[in-house]
This record gives sequence, structure tokens and C-alpha cells, in this order.
Amino acid sequence: MSTTPLDGNAIVYADGAFNTPNGKTAHGLARFTRRYRVIGIIDRQYAGQDSGQVLDGKPNGIPVYSCLQEALEQSDLRPRYFVIGLAPDGGRLPVAGRTAIREAIQAGLNIDSGLHDFISNDPDLREAANQYGVSIRDVRKTPDRDQLHFFTGDIEEVDCLKIAVLGTDSAIGKRTTAWLIVHGLEAAGYAAQMIGTGQTGWMQGAKYSMIMDSCINDFVSGEIEHAVVSAYRNEKPDVIVIEGQGSLMNPAYPGGFEILAAGRPDFVVLQHAPTRREYDGFPGYRLHSLPEQIHAIKVVSGREVIAITLNHEGLEAGAIEGACRQVTEETGLPCYDVLAHGPDALVKQITTYLRANADNRN
Amino acid sequence: MSTTPLDGNAIVYADGAFNTPNGKTAHGLARFTRRYRVIGIIDRQYAGQDSGQVLDGKPNGIPVYSCLQEALEQSDLRPRYFVIGLAPDGGRLPVAGRTAIREAIQAGLNIDSGLHDFISNDPDLREAANQYGVSIRDVRKTPDRDQLHFFTGDIEEVDCLKIAVLGTDSAIGKRTTAWLIVHGLEAAGYAAQMIGTGQTGWMQGAKYSMIMDSCINDFVSGEIEHAVVSAYRNEKPDVIVIEGQGSLMNPAYPGGFEILAAGRPDFVVLQHAPTRREYDGFPGYRLHSLPEQIHAIKVVSGREVIAITLNHEGLEAGAIEGACRQVTEETGLPCYDVLAHGPDALVKQITTYLRANADNRN
Repeated sequence: MSTTPLDGNAIVYADGAFNTPNGKTAHGLARFTRRYRVIGIIDRQYAGQDSGQVLDGKPNGIPVYSCLQEALEQSDLRPRYFVIGLAPDGGRLPVAGRTAIREAIQAGLNIDSGLHDFISNDPDLREAANQYGVSIRDVRKTPDRDQLHFFTGDIEEVDCLKIAVLGTDSAIGKRTTAWLIVHGLEAAGYAAQMIGTGQTGWMQGAKYSMIMDSCINDFVSGEIEHAVVSAYRNEKPDVIVIEGQGSLMNPAYPGGFEILAAGRPDFVVLQHAPTRREYDGFPGYRLHSLPEQIHAIKVVSGREVIAITLNHEGLEAGAIEGACRQVTEETGLPCYDVLAHGPDALVKQITTYLRANADNRN
Repeated sequence: MSTTPLDGNAIVYADGAFNTPNGKTAHGLARFTRRYRVIGIIDRQYAGQDSGQVLDGKPNGIPVYSCLQEALEQSDLRPRYFVIGLAPDGGRLPVAGRTAIREAIQAGLNIDSGLHDFISNDPDLREAANQYGVSIRDVRKTPDRDQLHFFTGDIEEVDCLKIAVLGTDSAIGKRTTAWLIVHGLEAAGYAAQMIGTGQTGWMQGAKYSMIMDSCINDFVSGEIEHAVVSAYRNEKPDVIVIEGQGSLMNPAYPGGFEILAAGRPDFVVLQHAPTRREYDGFPGYRLHSLPEQIHAIKVVSGREVIAITLNHEGLEAGAIEGACRQVTEETGLPCYDVLAHGPDALVKQITTYLRANADNRN
């Protein structure tokens, strides 16, 4: 894993939200990102403490400051980005946040935001950004057509191993598992690339990514292809891991079909939470069983699921091993809890296909 | 079928393109639309002739004029819309077209266009439109988020019969079949609503429609639901027919999943062209067989295909009946060529489900 961040040093703004559900984005960035070197979190409630200590009981060396001014005075590192780490319900920006953004702009920091409320739609803030020569990136903003790509078929030239991490439901841990696989492959000495397909993946530094939710529908397949082909051509990786979105049989938001069609993965790893009975956000809609979903992937795409990754939500630590055994009995597939036990065993399995794949190329 | 058009009288601009592949949109509008009363086509090559005579050898009472000025002088009807009927390769507007649009604006006509080149992005034309108080509608333009709807689940209240017309490939006749079913139901005395999901369906006057291609991906399901629920609440139809898009197993552009998930059709009618061997635009990619595609629809959505509608491209008139018989042998389903033989037989089958559906409601 490279240590130089993609974009540079960043201060993450989470005032009043850190260590609460409204601080999700800040938590993700405090725990892991390749896009920024996070040099501080802003939340006056935890000022003076270590953000990792607050969040996970493990120091991570990222201090919490009461405000931007304090961070600029106390940090030895100069920030380039002011990242909105708030994820408030409805995605709207609180008034205090607007003031903080204005101060950051005046301090010469670029603004990155994943809020539904687009910062660059605020005339005053946009004008201030122009005046101080800083950029505002609204990650969720739909790119213009002329920046988007149609599908070309170039995906056929990508002959490295491609793995798609899909899930049996949304909000089930696909992205985390995909990163763990990438890190595990890198730790084992392989070159791996993560293809991000959501805003958090982008903020965590997936160098080759697109944001499926906010993409114009006509271009989703082309943007997935473009990200995979660019990663292949520029990085020559041994493995490309594609982050899935949604789930195939979701009652309202079927997802992942374009990833299978345009990303042309060799194999699928399927993330599953055995304790879930209904689709996330759709009470009364029975979650399709693992065998049903594995079958659906095969029928619509011809792709094979090679392993199940377990989301252990609702399971005692002692129950994980039994749950994995049960999944294997149900599906005949190996099952791993990469969050609890790390990715090494799954990575070992994946590298066997890697060799096979390489042999096929000779 | 109501005789008052949705939007009013229209002149369709197709100069130099009528009766050529670049006049597709004009042809569709000359043959059938409920959005406009088409009072004239502009193309100097065919000026003075009847557009139906030129196109299909059957007069339709819509004259071709050499220019807008001539149309305004000679027609007894006053146009409200100037519709771009050109569909040039690449979707770019020729220079002459730009001049014609400016003249139409100066004559007080509203501009409708389905070109990739957005008319409203042209500063001069936009300014002229403001000056003359007319609207410019770029049908392909992606609507802003604040005009779009998320999925709510309200679709569950729609208890009239819902039929989705899907296809085994793209550009295979789904929209035409959907309209023929709607017209056939109306001729049989039922109230039917067409849910348009593409720009041509919109231009042909599907009152409740969304344009899937240009929609922000996150809102596709919600927009389909919103169109179906609005048609149900406002029109109280006996049947809602949803126009499909793309095809489930397309190698790059899988489509129709949101229609199945968010539109919740009771049944699927599947359009198929027996002479096609490969996917449209993807040479070398074998078209999945009818049984494979019917199975895929069942597996991912649980929905049943109740009939196949035949696209007879590449078949002699005498070969159609045999082709239908073969499809029925292959699938066990009734097969209709609604284009050659009309929709009555299929409509008769559909109305049996209608009664069943009505009984269930009592």
C-alpha cells in the first residue's frame, strides 16, 4: 500500500457529529483512506483527544481539534483539503457547517463534500472559492455528459484477474470486504487495484472509480468499463477488485448487473449476513436465500460465485465459526469472515485463480 | 383514444432528412403521436406532397412544406410547437437547423428536441426564447435531482392489471408493441395507460413517462414508480402497460430490472425477433435463447412471461405464421405478430387476466 496520499493532507470536519451516526463519513476517513493524509478531525466535543481512541479504543495518531483555527495553529502539517465528514440525515448542511466552510475557503483550503446539498450550488461559497482560488468538489454531483464514457468493448483486452464483490443486500459490507481483499493481496506481494463504485470508495482513495448512484443511467456501463480499463492500462495489476452496489434481487433498487455485464469479472465474491431476514429498508420483503442469489448471478451473467464473505452482524464472536460452517453446508462454497479473521485465507484462494489465469495467458 | 393532443399543434422539422434514416423521429410523429396534432412536416425535397403518401404510400392528411414560412401561410391551423424531427448520426444539429429554430422562435413557437446537442445550451437560442417568451424542451436533458422521485413503495397500492413489454434485445419493437396493446385495449372498450420509458414514447404522448437513459441512476426506480402510481391515481385505468428498455442479458447494457422491481408488473409480454442471432450492436455476442431469457426473468423477478410478440424482421410474410408456431413449440407460450395481424388476439388474452385481476379485488 502506497503511503503518499492521492490528493494530500486533509482536515475532516465533523463538529458535533464525531462518534455519532451522523459522523459516518468522518469515521471512515479516520480509519482508512488513501486519498488524503488525515491530519485532524474537527469536533469540539472531543477536542484534545485521539480520534482512534475515541472511535475504536485504539490510538491512530489523528488528533481531534475544536476548530479549524486550532488545527492550523497546532498541527505541524499543512492541510490542502477541508473534507465534510458529516453525514446528517437528509444530507443537509447545518448552518454552523456553512460558516466553517467559509473559514476554510478563506484559509485557502479546497472543499470536498459528499452531502446531497451541493456546496458549489451556494452562490456565496462558490464566489468565495473563486476569490481564494480553491476548488469545491461535490462528490455526489452528477457529471456532465461530455465527461462521461459510453461502453466501447475495450474491457475485452483486460486479461488480469477480475473479482467483483457483490452482496445479498445493500449496506452489508461489500466495500469493506473489497478493500480488505486489496490490502491482503498487496500484503501477499501482488499488485491489486480497487475499482470504487460509490462516494465513500472515492473518498477512501479508490484511484479508479465512478459513482454509480449519481451517474446518468446511459453511462453507467461505460463508466465502469472505463474505470476498469484505465486501472489495467495504467497500473498493470495482478488483480482488479470491483466494489459492488446494491443487490441483484432488491425489491426496488436492483443493482450489480452493469458491474457483471460491463466489468466482466472472472469470478464473484458474495457478501452475506446470515441474521438478515428482510431486505435493508424494506420490511416485509424476504431476503432471497444464498442459493437463490448465487443461482440468479449464474443465470443472468453466467458468472460463478467462488466464496461467501460473512457479515457477522447480530452474531456472538463465538457463533461466527458455526455460521461460516453452515453457509458452506448450504452452498458448498468456502465462507470467510474477513472482518473478524482477516483476508489471508480468501486471498490465498483468490491467488490460485490468479495463477490459473496467468497460465491461461501463456 | 382521445383526439385532443396533450400539448397542441406542431410542425415537425425534417429538412433534407424526411424519408431517410436521419428522419426517424419525424416518421414516428407523422405516423402516430398523442402529444401533438402534427399539422405539417418541413422538408423542401417533398414539399407539396402528403407525408403519409411519401412514407407509407397511404395519405395521412399531413402535408410537407418547404419551410416554416410556407407552413404558416398555407395551413389553417396555428402551430404551438416546432419539433425537431431529425435524428442525425451523433445527434448533432446541422447549421441550417439552427437557423430554422431561430426563425421558429421568432414566430413564437415552442421548441421540442430529442437531439444529444441540447438546444437550450445554445446561448443565442436561449436568449431568443426568453425574448419571445417561448419554451425550449430538450427531451434528453437529465432532470435536476429536485425534480426526481425516490422509490416510496406506493406502487403496492396500484391494484389494476400491470403488463410490462420487455424484449430479448434492444431496438426490437417493444415500444410499438406496447402502443398497439394500449390501442387494442381502448378499441375493446377498456381504459389503458402507456407508461413511456424513452424519449420517443414521450414525444408520442405517453402522458405518464420517464426517460430512463437520461435519468440519474439513483432515481430510475423512483421515477418508474412515480409514473405508474400517477397514471393509476389520476386515470384509474383497467390496464397499465409499461414500455421496456434494453434487455436483461445484454452484454453491456442490461435493462428492464428496475421496471420489474419498481413497476411490479403482474405479467410480462416478451418481444422477440427469431432471425436475430447476436445482440444488436454486439457482433459475436450470441443472443440468449427465448427459454433462457424467460427463465432469467422468472429467476430474478419471479414474474411470468404470458406471451411472445414476434418481430418479423428478415421473414417473408408467408413465413410469419410458421415462425409463431415454432416459438410456441419452443416456449409453450402463445405468440403473436401484432404488427402484421393487429393486437386483438393478444388483447383478448390480456383481458382474461384483467377479469381475474378484478375478481381478486372483489
